[in-house]
Amino acid sequence: MTLGELAEALGLQLEGDPARRIESVATIQSAGPGELCFLANDRYRQHLRSTRAGAVILHARDAADCPVAALLSDNPYADYARAAALLHPAGKAEAGISSSASVDPGATLGEGVHVGAGAVVGAGVELADGVEIGPGCVVAGPSRIGAGSRLRPRVVIEPGVTIGRDCLIHAGVVIGADGFGFAPDGDDWVKVPQLGGVRIGDRVELGAATTVDRGAIEDTVIGDGVKLDNQVQVAHNVQIGANTVIAGCTAIAGSSKIGRSCMIAGGVGIAGHLTITDGAVVTAMTLVSRDIREPGIYSGSLPMDDGASWRKNSARFRKLDDLARRVARLERELKDKGEKS
Amino acid sequence: MTLGELAEALGLQLEGDPARRIESVATIQSAGPGELCFLANDRYRQHLRSTRAGAVILHARDAADCPVAALLSDNPYADYARAAALLHPAGKAEAGISSSASVDPGATLGEGVHVGAGAVVGAGVELADGVEIGPGCVVAGPSRIGAGSRLRPRVVIEPGVTIGRDCLIHAGVVIGADGFGFAPDGDDWVKVPQLGGVRIGDRVELGAATTVDRGAIEDTVIGDGVKLDNQVQVAHNVQIGANTVIAGCTAIAGSSKIGRSCMIAGGVGIAGHLTITDGAVVTAMTLVSRDIREPGIYSGSLPMDDGASWRKNSARFRKLDDLARRVARLERELKDKGEKS
Amino acid sequence: MTLGELAEALGLQLEGDPARRIESVATIQSAGPGELCFLANDRYRQHLRSTRAGAVILHARDAADCPVAALLSDNPYADYARAAALLHPAGKAEAGISSSASVDPGATLGEGVHVGAGAVVGAGVELADGVEIGPGCVVAGPSRIGAGSRLRPRVVIEPGVTIGRDCLIHAGVVIGADGFGFAPDGDDWVKVPQLGGVRIGDRVELGAATTVDRGAIEDTVIGDGVKLDNQVQVAHNVQIGANTVIAGCTAIAGSSKIGRSCMIAGGVGIAGHLTITDGAVVTAMTLVSRDIREPGIYSGSLPMDDGASWRKNSARFRKLDDLARRVARLERELKDKGEKS
Repeated sequence: MTLGELAEALGLQLEGDPARRIESVATIQSAGPGELCFLANDRYRQHLRSTRAGAVILHARDAADCPVAALLSDNPYADYARAAALLHPAGKAEAGISSSASVDPGATLGEGVHVGAGAVVGAGVELADGVEIGPGCVVAGPSRIGAGSRLRPRVVIEPGVTIGRDCLIHAGVVIGADGFGFAPDGDDWVKVPQLGGVRIGDRVELGAATTVDRGAIEDTVIGDGVKLDNQVQVAHNVQIGANTVIAGCTAIAGSSKIGRSCMIAGGVGIAGHLTITDGAVVTAMTLVSRDIREPGIYSGSLPMDDGASWRKNSARFRKLDDLARRVARLERELKDKGEKS
Repeated sequence: MTLGELAEALGLQLEGDPARRIESVATIQSAGPGELCFLANDRYRQHLRSTRAGAVILHARDAADCPVAALLSDNPYADYARAAALLHPAGKAEAGISSSASVDPGATLGEGVHVGAGAVVGAGVELADGVEIGPGCVVAGPSRIGAGSRLRPRVVIEPGVTIGRDCLIHAGVVIGADGFGFAPDGDDWVKVPQLGGVRIGDRVELGAATTVDRGAIEDTVIGDGVKLDNQVQVAHNVQIGANTVIAGCTAIAGSSKIGRSCMIAGGVGIAGHLTITDGAVVTAMTLVSRDIREPGIYSGSLPMDDGASWRKNSARFRKLDDLARRVARLERELKDKGEKS
Repeated sequence: MTLGELAEALGLQLEGDPARRIESVATIQSAGPGELCFLANDRYRQHLRSTRAGAVILHARDAADCPVAALLSDNPYADYARAAALLHPAGKAEAGISSSASVDPGATLGEGVHVGAGAVVGAGVELADGVEIGPGCVVAGPSRIGAGSRLRPRVVIEPGVTIGRDCLIHAGVVIGADGFGFAPDGDDWVKVPQLGGVRIGDRVELGAATTVDRGAIEDTVIGDGVKLDNQVQVAHNVQIGANTVIAGCTAIAGSSKIGRSCMIAGGVGIAGHLTITDGAVVTAMTLVSRDIREPGIYSGSLPMDDGASWRKNSARFRKLDDLARRVARLERELKDKGEKS
């Protein structure tokens, strides 16, 4: 594409030669004359003056320092993302069913559906137009996958799952396995049948090896525009509001309800039956053990230290209540002394 | 089923019309006249008086408040679980081998075995009567799976694994991958061959994407009735006692031995070579770094706080030993002063 | 093998009968006359005098206490590992392509390549000599796998991945899924195309269900000799230096750079854009939230306690800043008093 075409497609003002050709994207440090980069983060500003890129997407306020063509943007990172998608369009799998796939005659396939090698599509599965089922996937019915959604290799969809439009489900994801429900009965555990399903909205992305369990009675629900990273665990009857993003290895216990537009970092644990309000931010490796009622930032990790300091400090933690009582006693004694003197 | 049939099957006393038909289960808030619900948790008692369910399974002490038919139970949740299994029997896969499955002639299959599409069953595999191997599973031999056990899609069983009767292994589980064993040798690591196997008892359930490694020399062992949630990691030579339950994303390092009837919450880490006694309870995201010798509850997570408070408090944690020394000095000084005055 | 052959193959001095036959390995407690064991850890020294093993690999300083044949080693654990590999050679899959595998004509296969049942090998894949692709794997091209590397069942390789020689990739691993990159744009998230690949060195081992994401623009890089345990998460553009080992369930956020010969324990979280120096050691469940510039041990987990003590102490943690201020006030008051008196 030319810079002029890019500027028009993105709706951005161009400072530079509209006829220059851009082939691909690169980092600001490594980009060459046929490459586009962006500047959104202060830590990379030092590289701007020396960049050899074909063009840089940046804020108007940085344009004066840019030695090459510039595309002026109020949101350089988002516009970079759009530009990269234009320059490197995601390969679309060819429509058709691989000869080694198993598609049950009781499945319903829309126009332009792709089913990869070795994939298994069961009776009662509905695949809307343009759905891509990657090699080795297993999709059991009844279930429904909306138009344009793509399953990468080896995804498992258990019965009772609905997925919206334009979703991207990465390799190894399991949707609709049984929730973890057992009723204690003496020494034994009686399995509680997991009879609900999973409902996933539009434009959802689920990272590799993430698991989303089916509900116990009602459904587990993931809203439109939600993005989950790799190895996230979503237990039965969890609800995740629209546009919430959750980083890798976070686990959400049963029946918790996460609001819209939350940002949950990696390695977080969210206990069961909690409510987290819209717009909450939780930092890495925090255990959310009570409701979050106000938007804001919430944390609960211990700071890293060198081993010797950590050992001394954490030993004191086990006596922290005692320490606080000793301080209170000192305060009383000093007050008594003050009153006496 | 009629309420009378349900009451008889569950061995419960019925207060209400035994001829009423029940079609399915529902929550106490949403149940209609053909549906059964239960009351086991105080937080739902408020919904009892207004329920429109066909019947409620509850304690005798709650029966007076129940506006509809009641099934009286000493353990309403367990009896609900049994009732749900009667009303919604798990679909049994049809016996037979899918035409797209690969079953080695050296495998031994009992009566009524099901092997799903694209599954691979190797030489030396023994599948007892009624075993179900889901689509896309890979079962390598030698290995043995007991009667009535079911593997959901895409489970991997490596050689040297024994699974008991009536187990349920969810999608994406890997049993018998190599344990993590490397001997340091200068800058290099020499792989320690992982020569043990995995032995899993009867009535075990393993959640989606859980991994159970083979032993280094002897076996990794999971006892009867153990239930593991999703994404649990069980390292080589771990032993888990009967009826222990472990929630999602918990990891157990090598050679640790967990007792019977323990309850381990999610996100817990258990260090290697430890012993945990029968009946121990460990709360979420605790690092178990020493033996647990007495039953009871054990915890080690940091409480969540708003970001500003957490930042101030956790900065103080890094000086906690110093703070404790300052308090001890104050105590000495005040004592000295007291003695002087 | 005879003890004499073993001693010669390992380059160790033998004290005992070189003609004795050794069939297999065992633990020092359970080994019988045809079995070899080792002593490397003080906790097992108590079993040495009573061992009935055919031979023990041990330090020369322990030889006097050994009642049976001894192989003297400066590194008994590494020499045990080598001996075990000699006595129990890993089964080599037969060369050839399973009739149920799908190998694209555009793939390039070296000598002695094995492709297992149901595996899918795409166009543009290069498999060097002796590569083993396990049953159910999906390998998409362009990608390259070096000589002698083995993929266990159900591994997924996305396009743009290079794997070196003699690697071992365990079941369920996903290499090259999209990194977690989204640019905020009002309430929405714009997907940032993940255009980099993954480069993995020689002699790397990846544990079951581990995920390694492709880079955003440049590659994610794993050095020679790196060993990752099960369920490790490696985000986009992470770099891991040679011979670093990382235990189960550890997660590394985007663009962090881990040095050579580090030892990272299980359940660790490493925040994004950090640098960890060569030879650093991080203990279990630590959140690494800043650079590690000096080799040494780093920790950040809370000590486990009984539930009652933990509840009291952790409640105090939420007032720790306040407690520190109260101690400072006491110090000032006491100093004032001292000056007045």
